[in-house]
Amino acid sequence: MKLWNSVVIYGVGLIGGSIGMAIRQRGLAKEVIGVGRNPSSLDLAIELGAIDRYSVEIEPILDSADLVVVATPVGQIVDHIRQVREVCRSDCLITDAGSTKTQIVRQIEQQPEINGCYIGSHPLAGSEQSGVAAASHDLLSDRLVVLTPTESSPSEPLTALQNFWQSLGARVQLMSPEDHDEALAQTSHLTHIVASSLAASTPEACLPLAATGWEDTTRVAAGDVNLWAEILMQNRGQVQLALQKFQQQLIDFNRAINDSDMGRLRHLLTTGKQRRDSVGN
Amino acid sequence: MKLWNSVVIYGVGLIGGSIGMAIRQRGLAKEVIGVGRNPSSLDLAIELGAIDRYSVEIEPILDSADLVVVATPVGQIVDHIRQVREVCRSDCLITDAGSTKTQIVRQIEQQPEINGCYIGSHPLAGSEQSGVAAASHDLLSDRLVVLTPTESSPSEPLTALQNFWQSLGARVQLMSPEDHDEALAQTSHLTHIVASSLAASTPEACLPLAATGWEDTTRVAAGDVNLWAEILMQNRGQVQLALQKFQQQLIDFNRAINDSDMGRLRHLLTTGKQRRDSVGN
Repeated sequence: MKLWNSVVIYGVGLIGGSIGMAIRQRGLAKEVIGVGRNPSSLDLAIELGAIDRYSVEIEPILDSADLVVVATPVGQIVDHIRQVREVCRSDCLITDAGSTKTQIVRQIEQQPEINGCYIGSHPLAGSEQSGVAAASHDLLSDRLVVLTPTESSPSEPLTALQNFWQSLGARVQLMSPEDHDEALAQTSHLTHIVASSLAASTPEACLPLAATGWEDTTRVAAGDVNLWAEILMQNRGQVQLALQKFQQQLIDFNRAINDSDMGRLRHLLTTGKQRRDSVGN
Repeated sequence: MKLWNSVVIYGVGLIGGSIGMAIRQRGLAKEVIGVGRNPSSLDLAIELGAIDRYSVEIEPILDSADLVVVATPVGQIVDHIRQVREVCRSDCLITDAGSTKTQIVRQIEQQPEINGCYIGSHPLAGSEQSGVAAASHDLLSDRLVVLTPTESSPSEPLTALQNFWQSLGARVQLMSPEDHDEALAQTSHLTHIVASSLAASTPEACLPLAATGWEDTTRVAAGDVNLWAEILMQNRGQVQLALQKFQQQLIDFNRAINDSDMGRLRHLLTTGKQRRDSVGN
């Protein structure tokens, strides 16, 4: 017996496509249906095995769906969840895959008719590439997915959603939307600003001298500009706090160099090394 | 016929060890001799195929050497070159593998008896690991090696040195020491400060939420603290200029976020993306 009857992926890009591929490869649903605006990209999604079929309209395909994953850009997720809820079955579980959670989850929470069947998700997987062409059935394997139920979230959908992500090979952690956004501001959103700023501040004439260190440090700067602009704005408060701390660290480095303070310089480098070493990879 | 009779590697770590492995694997010298202070590390270098034999003293092994590569930390390179020059044959070619060039090359230039047989090199290869255990015979394959001859450098050793690095599979580019240090401040030295600061400013409690983006962006922060402290201090002027430009970029980001200026935010992200995309990998 299949875990799901029909899973709808709203937005079949890198993340949505990878979720579809994993569901289909593991045989977890009778069918995976894509929703999007671009038929040629959705044709490609079928060709790549991410979905069984698709629709450019949401209504006709929601009568049989028991799970909808909204994997559109963060600025559109709330609207898309509302749109889904209007036409889906009453027992349909809805989640999203947005990189920010507070704005989305707290807005949905205001609407009890949606809140009862929605729980937020954030799969911590991705790459600097975007689009279904970059999707992979194992993108989520052994990755962390943060779920952000609130005090008013029902418990049955939560269990079903945990099972869903685990059945795709992911690990699940529960956090409040606020804690999620504070942590991700540090580990992901600030990271993007830093990588982008380093890339942008490197003069073109110097690029032939960029080796693997520069390539690694700036890799995420190649990510989709519109997606990232929305993420940074949705989490602006936490992003600005994280940025402030980072700027202070740079000031400390500059002072140590300026004062020729080798002890202080070594101390700063050691703190960075220890933090990095503790993560590995 | 071998290209070299005896090549001496002074400092058999990641870079020195990789050079030794490449020479030996390609059969470019009759023998590769390591010089260092730590016999157990030099024993390991023999075991790993980086050198044929070693000495903890420089004198006894320099009578047959026609090439010496000084691959010690940048703060010690000038002293080690002087030491080598005192006892080596008059036709022995000396180079180094230091990540900074101006201080080293301009100091050596003051001493005509050394200057005639020395030309600076910087192989743009490495990793966040250090020591001969991390060395590899193909670390230099298809990598760029910058040579920094000066107005007073003789031309014959330059040709020989270009041939040497090319025979290891590397590409060679000539630059002045000052141009090298200005470019590397941007592409490598600032990169290290940025990665280290990002790692250090991430609270430990957030680390379980660090995904591949954070891992890539902070990877070089795991590098050897003492090596990097010396590199940053040797190139402090250029490093501080590069850091200033980078800090301005962060200020621009912060302002765009603060003003909810999506157009400006997209523009900043686009500049970073275009610069990164032009490099690839």
